[in-house]
Amino acid sequence: MQAIVKRHPGGGWEPAELPMPEPGPGQALLQVLVAGICGTDLHLVDWTPWAASRVVTPRVLGHEMAGRVLAVGPTVDRPRVGELVGVESHLVDGTCRQCRRGDFHVCAATRILGVDVDGAFAEAVVVPARNCWPTPEALGPEVTAFQEPMGNAVHAAVQGPLRDRTVLVTGAGPIGCAAVAVARAEGAARVVAVDRTAERLAMALAMGADEGVTTAGVAAGDLASRLSQACRGEADAVLEMAGAPDLLRAALTVAAAGGWVSLLGLGSADLRLDLDRLVVMRGLTLFGVTGRRQFQTWERTTGYLASGAVDVRPLLTHRFALAHFDDAVAVARSGRGGKVLIYPGNGPVP
Amino acid sequence: MQAIVKRHPGGGWEPAELPMPEPGPGQALLQVLVAGICGTDLHLVDWTPWAASRVVTPRVLGHEMAGRVLAVGPTVDRPRVGELVGVESHLVDGTCRQCRRGDFHVCAATRILGVDVDGAFAEAVVVPARNCWPTPEALGPEVTAFQEPMGNAVHAAVQGPLRDRTVLVTGAGPIGCAAVAVARAEGAARVVAVDRTAERLAMALAMGADEGVTTAGVAAGDLASRLSQACRGEADAVLEMAGAPDLLRAALTVAAAGGWVSLLGLGSADLRLDLDRLVVMRGLTLFGVTGRRQFQTWERTTGYLASGAVDVRPLLTHRFALAHFDDAVAVARSGRGGKVLIYPGNGPVP
Amino acid sequence: MQAIVKRHPGGGWEPAELPMPEPGPGQALLQVLVAGICGTDLHLVDWTPWAASRVVTPRVLGHEMAGRVLAVGPTVDRPRVGELVGVESHLVDGTCRQCRRGDFHVCAATRILGVDVDGAFAEAVVVPARNCWPTPEALGPEVTAFQEPMGNAVHAAVQGPLRDRTVLVTGAGPIGCAAVAVARAEGAARVVAVDRTAERLAMALAMGADEGVTTAGVAAGDLASRLSQACRGEADAVLEMAGAPDLLRAALTVAAAGGWVSLLGLGSADLRLDLDRLVVMRGLTLFGVTGRRQFQTWERTTGYLASGAVDVRPLLTHRFALAHFDDAVAVARSGRGGKVLIYPGNGPVP
Amino acid sequence: MQAIVKRHPGGGWEPAELPMPEPGPGQALLQVLVAGICGTDLHLVDWTPWAASRVVTPRVLGHEMAGRVLAVGPTVDRPRVGELVGVESHLVDGTCRQCRRGDFHVCAATRILGVDVDGAFAEAVVVPARNCWPTPEALGPEVTAFQEPMGNAVHAAVQGPLRDRTVLVTGAGPIGCAAVAVARAEGAARVVAVDRTAERLAMALAMGADEGVTTAGVAAGDLASRLSQACRGEADAVLEMAGAPDLLRAALTVAAAGGWVSLLGLGSADLRLDLDRLVVMRGLTLFGVTGRRQFQTWERTTGYLASGAVDVRPLLTHRFALAHFDDAVAVARSGRGGKVLIYPGNGPVP
Repeated sequence: MQAIVKRHPGGGWEPAELPMPEPGPGQALLQVLVAGICGTDLHLVDWTPWAASRVVTPRVLGHEMAGRVLAVGPTVDRPRVGELVGVESHLVDGTCRQCRRGDFHVCAATRILGVDVDGAFAEAVVVPARNCWPTPEALGPEVTAFQEPMGNAVHAAVQGPLRDRTVLVTGAGPIGCAAVAVARAEGAARVVAVDRTAERLAMALAMGADEGVTTAGVAAGDLASRLSQACRGEADAVLEMAGAPDLLRAALTVAAAGGWVSLLGLGSADLRLDLDRLVVMRGLTLFGVTGRRQFQTWERTTGYLASGAVDVRPLLTHRFALAHFDDAVAVARSGRGGKVLIYPGNGPVP
Repeated sequence: MQAIVKRHPGGGWEPAELPMPEPGPGQALLQVLVAGICGTDLHLVDWTPWAASRVVTPRVLGHEMAGRVLAVGPTVDRPRVGELVGVESHLVDGTCRQCRRGDFHVCAATRILGVDVDGAFAEAVVVPARNCWPTPEALGPEVTAFQEPMGNAVHAAVQGPLRDRTVLVTGAGPIGCAAVAVARAEGAARVVAVDRTAERLAMALAMGADEGVTTAGVAAGDLASRLSQACRGEADAVLEMAGAPDLLRAALTVAAAGGWVSLLGLGSADLRLDLDRLVVMRGLTLFGVTGRRQFQTWERTTGYLASGAVDVRPLLTHRFALAHFDDAVAVARSGRGGKVLIYPGNGPVP
Repeated sequence: MQAIVKRHPGGGWEPAELPMPEPGPGQALLQVLVAGICGTDLHLVDWTPWAASRVVTPRVLGHEMAGRVLAVGPTVDRPRVGELVGVESHLVDGTCRQCRRGDFHVCAATRILGVDVDGAFAEAVVVPARNCWPTPEALGPEVTAFQEPMGNAVHAAVQGPLRDRTVLVTGAGPIGCAAVAVARAEGAARVVAVDRTAERLAMALAMGADEGVTTAGVAAGDLASRLSQACRGEADAVLEMAGAPDLLRAALTVAAAGGWVSLLGLGSADLRLDLDRLVVMRGLTLFGVTGRRQFQTWERTTGYLASGAVDVRPLLTHRFALAHFDDAVAVARSGRGGKVLIYPGNGPVP
Repeated sequence: MQAIVKRHPGGGWEPAELPMPEPGPGQALLQVLVAGICGTDLHLVDWTPWAASRVVTPRVLGHEMAGRVLAVGPTVDRPRVGELVGVESHLVDGTCRQCRRGDFHVCAATRILGVDVDGAFAEAVVVPARNCWPTPEALGPEVTAFQEPMGNAVHAAVQGPLRDRTVLVTGAGPIGCAAVAVARAEGAARVVAVDRTAERLAMALAMGADEGVTTAGVAAGDLASRLSQACRGEADAVLEMAGAPDLLRAALTVAAAGGWVSLLGLGSADLRLDLDRLVVMRGLTLFGVTGRRQFQTWERTTGYLASGAVDVRPLLTHRFALAHFDDAVAVARSGRGGKVLIYPGNGPVP
């Protein structure tokens, strides 16, 4: 089968012809219907320090995907052959303290699809049966695949109350825009989205934001007043999806006393902040958010989509055949549009 | 009556003879039995920027106290005249959004006793009847007064699970030591306390810590490994009572994935940290903690004390007559012992 | 002023001319704009055993109301004169254990407006300022008044998860129908309403129920299978608003393992049930629901209404002048329509 | 190997010589070190209607056990061969809606060890590796085995707050007594235990109850006042472990407004109660409790035991060799003592 592989340490990737994998006990073999590109994939492509410290080559990339169950290994009841499934990309050990508590998303031994095991930019992939999330056919493969990143948004958004709250979403990429839609579906009184680019703010407005705030050309010192203006005072909840320190500080500044903040964006490796004034004195709660609850978040995510409460199709903006992976990467890098999807094979894409 | 008053903006304070106050509707007049000195009082004495920006003079200082109800104003059923009461030092408006939700501790219009209204370093004080917390006589005035700072410790300690957890308490002053005792009472598997001074670590051990770690002479870069060693690996919960940035970073470093951190200590006005690696990627939750829940925290605090589950008397180490307030302040400044208590009047103290 | 008064123990009521009341400290004087009739009012009119055991005459009846603030007593900041307010009908002592925990709705010393103190079927009424809930003018007096009974529905509906759940609402009076709308707004996957009368089921469908099930002519033994059919299997959540034992048993029978049930309806004073099989073995949780959280439920209720997520106007079906209180009572007794509203004065009503 | 087997439908059981089982993928083979007799076992022995409707013969009985891991099947990392393990007796499918939410204890397809699959009254047993709970050697096999029934007590006891609460435990068998100890460890202010027999009340007092109330010779109408007297008023929490309708009604009568009740005992198949007055009007919450959370409850249970906060050894009162199973059953039937333990083999027991 055709796959996108990181052969050796260092930047780049190459197409490869690999043998079809086989499912062992507790596993399922999936035909990859479609797969999304995520920032993590770019880390691997670019061989950033994080990637260099973690990834063992060779490795098939990709972790956001929809699949069709081709076969299951011994002892597997579900999923059933033929089912459409989304895939939880975090493979957990099931036996560590966190897993035993049901907190699988912080498993101490998490392996990630396309990072620590071979992934989804291929014609087929083997995953634990447990990681398959059967999804109604009506959603279709693209939306099914998008459940994985949307799950991040949902996990971040449901850490605290949203109903009747003013919600500030910093970062309007696909995950941020999904968070906007979730906040709206949960009855937020006002949703403000922030991003650098006009394209993404337009996307956020399409997903239900009341107002979009651009950071382009705004001095760091003016950010808080801009956010406050857009929030009409304070933000009861902040969903941080940008990983931009200046913006995070500004967002904390406009957070209401007793409010809450979900931190999902990466990019604050050297953050400076006045913890006393911004967090302690006003009794804020900050949630570091990683992964998705397995599988409460998935149930909720599918629910939003299947009921029509959230429609993410406007966020799925680019499609490429696997054979044009380089073009796909270039678009994903631009930080402008929505989700970039990869179709296995060489053929035309929808 | 005799009182300690800040007459004018600027450092210092002076004793003053004031008229006895009278309770209006909804208020109670309390005889001050004993009052504690807190770091906030030193801010006012020293007229720090925070104090200068907030306090209007003249002002009677002091906010940690036990009182005897001398009289109540119109419409007051409780407390009853003659009752021993602790006093919630945060006076709330009861009508803001936070108060209406029951989150009185983050009231947007909080006024603090001894900061925004006349306080407890006096022979008598008027407070809202609502702020009086009737306390069993058996606890005695000193422990009754200590419920206020202990409430901070309790509020911080009950933000997440403690039972069977490894709990790291950074800062072993009176509040940190009370937190040690609460963690112990709640079934923590291991409690580690950290402080600069040997006196305070000894106090923490007396309150039930399994191990005390001194920061004296330890390089910032070695702190995390020292904490990890004392925690025998990771800390499931961190109770931050020190307000020391290096120590906070080290504590976050040893926090377990999915763990939680209460932030109570002030002193991180210019914190630098790797938010990505320390908080986001490991799914930590950070609780900024201010005040106490009114009055769930008080019920719990009194419960620990009345049942004997926590005995805070070893933390009450110094006693002075109001007439020797300067000596009391000097001891409180030293950062070495436990709580410094002030007795109104000139007489000998217990 | 004109008022509806229960003069002496026993059935009935009489109109009376009373002096205008005056607000004391902590109180507000409200002009009654409109007031609703509730089942509790009928208990007083009919002098049922419960009423006889509780009510001291003379008593002005009525507790669901919207008011305009005419004046406030000493020490009252809020509400402001001129504001439109809904009224929390449960007057609490603020000092019992439950109140101190913030659980005002189960205050041990609750006094109810129109039951234990003079009520709302009058041109004006005095209530504690604390019990006034300022409401946006745009909602208008009728919807403002309806917040009190709708609060019961909200309080019942938010005890457990609704999103993506199948929700069974037993009893489709005004409160049951409001619960249907709340379940819908909260993302329930399927909402089934049950009632005896076709009028009320039609009302439930108008409020968003997917299916209405009539109990008229259905044998007790067939109820569960009818409910199961309508629920397409099991109910994840049951909102019990009917107080009908046969129906409650049937509802528990179709509740899913691990599901939850809010019990609001009265009428099960002599219930028989198989607790083992229906509740214990399947791990159900049953919430006895009384009153509303003060004031978290109010915030949420107003939020549903102000945002347009819930429109209760179809539930407000009858209007009478105070002078025609007997006609109003007759309609309320019929158990057929929606909420019956009383306008003070003799004039024509909207 | 020797085992206790129900060969055919109907009362009784017989010893049998069976082949040693072998672990398949995902399974572990355990040497049974010791196993407890539970009321459920008596249902099978006596072939009650519940047993007749559920059990398929032949079946090896027994589900409370401690084991030593002899071997594991393919794909099993944990437990490790040689480990001491307790065994979660509820085998879940892992794929139903409840399991996917992490609510394994209400799995719709639960199979129970010794009921639906061959059980623990044997020299060895095969169970899913997932169901093995590694336990510190220091606890020893008997306490390790007792974690399963104690887990019921823990699961029931932690449904609501216990600290500073008056807790009423109805039924003082091994599970009720374990609940007494848990309530004590969690800081209950007062713990009252109720049972028919003096032996069990003595056991409850030994486990930390403040007072024991006998129901022997007490008229149903007097129960509530007896309980109220022992509770010194009201019970904030009720842990119902008796399954006796009169006692349950009395317990609900003394429950405080806003209080909570865990229902674990079976025996209320035809309960009559005044739901209006006992549950609805006072805002009680009733938790039907089945099984244990997998594995949060196990972590907590082991924590109580390993820390010494709870010592259940006084509850382990009788020991028999498998060869004397009939004597063991007779003691278990008496309803007088504590837990009856079975040792595989014929030899003398500790």
